Amino acid sequence: MSTFYRINSKSLTEICSDILRKAGVPDKDADIVAESLVDADLRGVSSHGVIRMSIYLQRMGRGVIAKNAEVKIVHETDSTVVLDGGYGIGQVVSQRAVELLIKKAENSNLSAVSVRHSNHFGAAAYWASQVLEKDMIGFVVSNVEPLMPPPGGAAAKVGNNPIAMAIPSDKEKPIIVDMATSVVPLGKILAAKSKGQAIPEGWAVDHMGQPTTNPDDVVQGGFLFPVGGPKGYGLAILVDILSALLSNGAVGTDIHSMYRDFDNPNDISHFFMAIRVDAFMDPKLFKASVDRYIQYMKNTPLAPGAAAIYLPGEIEANNKETNLTEGIILPQTVAQELQSFAEEAGLDPALIAELTGNPLHPEKANV
Amino acid sequence: MSTFYRINSKSLTEICSDILRKAGVPDKDADIVAESLVDADLRGVSSHGVIRMSIYLQRMGRGVIAKNAEVKIVHETDSTVVLDGGYGIGQVVSQRAVELLIKKAENSNLSAVSVRHSNHFGAAAYWASQVLEKDMIGFVVSNVEPLMPPPGGAAAKVGNNPIAMAIPSDKEKPIIVDMATSVVPLGKILAAKSKGQAIPEGWAVDHMGQPTTNPDDVVQGGFLFPVGGPKGYGLAILVDILSALLSNGAVGTDIHSMYRDFDNPNDISHFFMAIRVDAFMDPKLFKASVDRYIQYMKNTPLAPGAAAIYLPGEIEANNKETNLTEGIILPQTVAQELQSFAEEAGLDPALIAELTGNPLHPEKANV
Repeated sequence: MSTFYRINSKSLTEICSDILRKAGVPDKDADIVAESLVDADLRGVSSHGVIRMSIYLQRMGRGVIAKNAEVKIVHETDSTVVLDGGYGIGQVVSQRAVELLIKKAENSNLSAVSVRHSNHFGAAAYWASQVLEKDMIGFVVSNVEPLMPPPGGAAAKVGNNPIAMAIPSDKEKPIIVDMATSVVPLGKILAAKSKGQAIPEGWAVDHMGQPTTNPDDVVQGGFLFPVGGPKGYGLAILVDILSALLSNGAVGTDIHSMYRDFDNPNDISHFFMAIRVDAFMDPKLFKASVDRYIQYMKNTPLAPGAAAIYLPGEIEANNKETNLTEGIILPQTVAQELQSFAEEAGLDPALIAELTGNPLHPEKANV
Repeated sequence: MSTFYRINSKSLTEICSDILRKAGVPDKDADIVAESLVDADLRGVSSHGVIRMSIYLQRMGRGVIAKNAEVKIVHETDSTVVLDGGYGIGQVVSQRAVELLIKKAENSNLSAVSVRHSNHFGAAAYWASQVLEKDMIGFVVSNVEPLMPPPGGAAAKVGNNPIAMAIPSDKEKPIIVDMATSVVPLGKILAAKSKGQAIPEGWAVDHMGQPTTNPDDVVQGGFLFPVGGPKGYGLAILVDILSALLSNGAVGTDIHSMYRDFDNPNDISHFFMAIRVDAFMDPKLFKASVDRYIQYMKNTPLAPGAAAIYLPGEIEANNKETNLTEGIILPQTVAQELQSFAEEAGLDPALIAELTGNPLHPEKANV
């Protein structure tokens, strides 16, 4: 009767990695992808978690994600790299980008890698966070297919391109911003539609570019709207420029939908930047100062009805602590999807059984 | 009868510069400040234009802006600088920061300058744009006094910290994003109040941190709200970190209001970053690609009622073209304020007369 299952993150990582391996992804790369997806689930960002396994496998099957792409350096200086992802798996491309990013920053204090011909890389926050243990600030953006019109427009011209930045802290949790540049993701509009609810004004426009509160208008040819209108629009454009224009990658209609076009590679672009804290000050002092800033913010008097003040990334870090101990919660649909992939791939039945071995009463799932 | 005047930008720059000089600002610095303010008026961003002369002069008179501050390098590497503005005029400090930024980027491809103990520097876009002619991408942010609560909070903890980024183009106008991280600036709420109008939900919260549509609630102890809630809040925090935490500058209540506290320096912080395009690709190809991107965006079908699609910074660039030829439009209050400063400073009467020599019928002012 349960519609949710709990599974420990190690087993889930092993299952996803094994499935990818059996699908032809090299061992090391399979681990990279599985770890990134499971990390999103650990952080409660299930939209970027193992739910993506299915689309990755479909696209690899169709040859529009290259399982074993050659990731090539197109151009480099002491501090910068232009990388060609060869239409490989986004996480594999991004892992290479981050390695180069850290190496360059170790030499040059500031470093940047602009990446073309890539695919969905999971959560941007995951990649921005990779530099934290080096006492660096990480900045990661990616473009995606056009989903938003410019203000005043009636066609999608720019993606709701995500922006992530990670700030190292000492005893407190690191500050990790990860935001799409639309007011909301499409998923929130689909959720309102499935419940028959209106959406707040400002979330989206119809196919004519006119504001609407009817989710059907959005699904039937309408568009997401940029957060803050010209502000989100401006930020989304900056992402296109840093990721795709600096790398000579794809923008606009040269990017193909991950979920609707199985004949062409997605062809998105990323941009990674690292800032070494010790190029400005002693990292110990900086991280203590970040801790004080976090405490200053958390000590804000609460508005009626508010339970606590959270820093960006704090709720996700709390989720991760909980889910590392108690296991990740998967909806039945996702658990069963993985189960069928795992069975096809001939994984160890004892491992497969873990997917649905721990049913959770829906009222406890809190998802 | 007219409430607006037109004045050519050269004369206006000369008047402002002369007033500052007579107030004790060194010649070169007076020019820097005047040019930055007049540029904002040229671009139609009058909130950051010569209307600020009055507060700058008041604060210099009270000694909380240092007229002749020593701007000191606290720490530097091949690519980074921590600068102490010595509580000097924001534009003078920023000019020095940009000079260092360009010098460092010329050596190292990427460069960053984090600045503490500064003051209002005018429009962030002005400083981001300074690197364009070097074929660099400019990024400039500044913190300001706390004006927004964290979501769920009932006290101002973070400024509506502006973010600007400038992208070089070829034949098209450069793309220049310049945005505050609140939904709207306080000025828009004051304007609604003066007209007795309600404000849209989401713009602000009352003193308890609760949403309000009554502008009086905002003025009486309420707060601006971050654009997109957690998104604008996250971006504003990142600005505090890059500008103030990396430079060991002031955040929170250590920043003093420019308009309400005349006993303490404003003490804001800035962060400047430059990215050399040729560290990634041939700047000619990049700028041609930016031009194509601009055309792609402008060729969007229009929503009903929309006149055109604009890129970030385009309307301001159009204003500048017009105002360079036709003169800057000043409201009577600002023209008369400058007139009285100019008379006190003993400026050439012929120059002073230009301030109010060209009255404009209100219906033509379009401001």
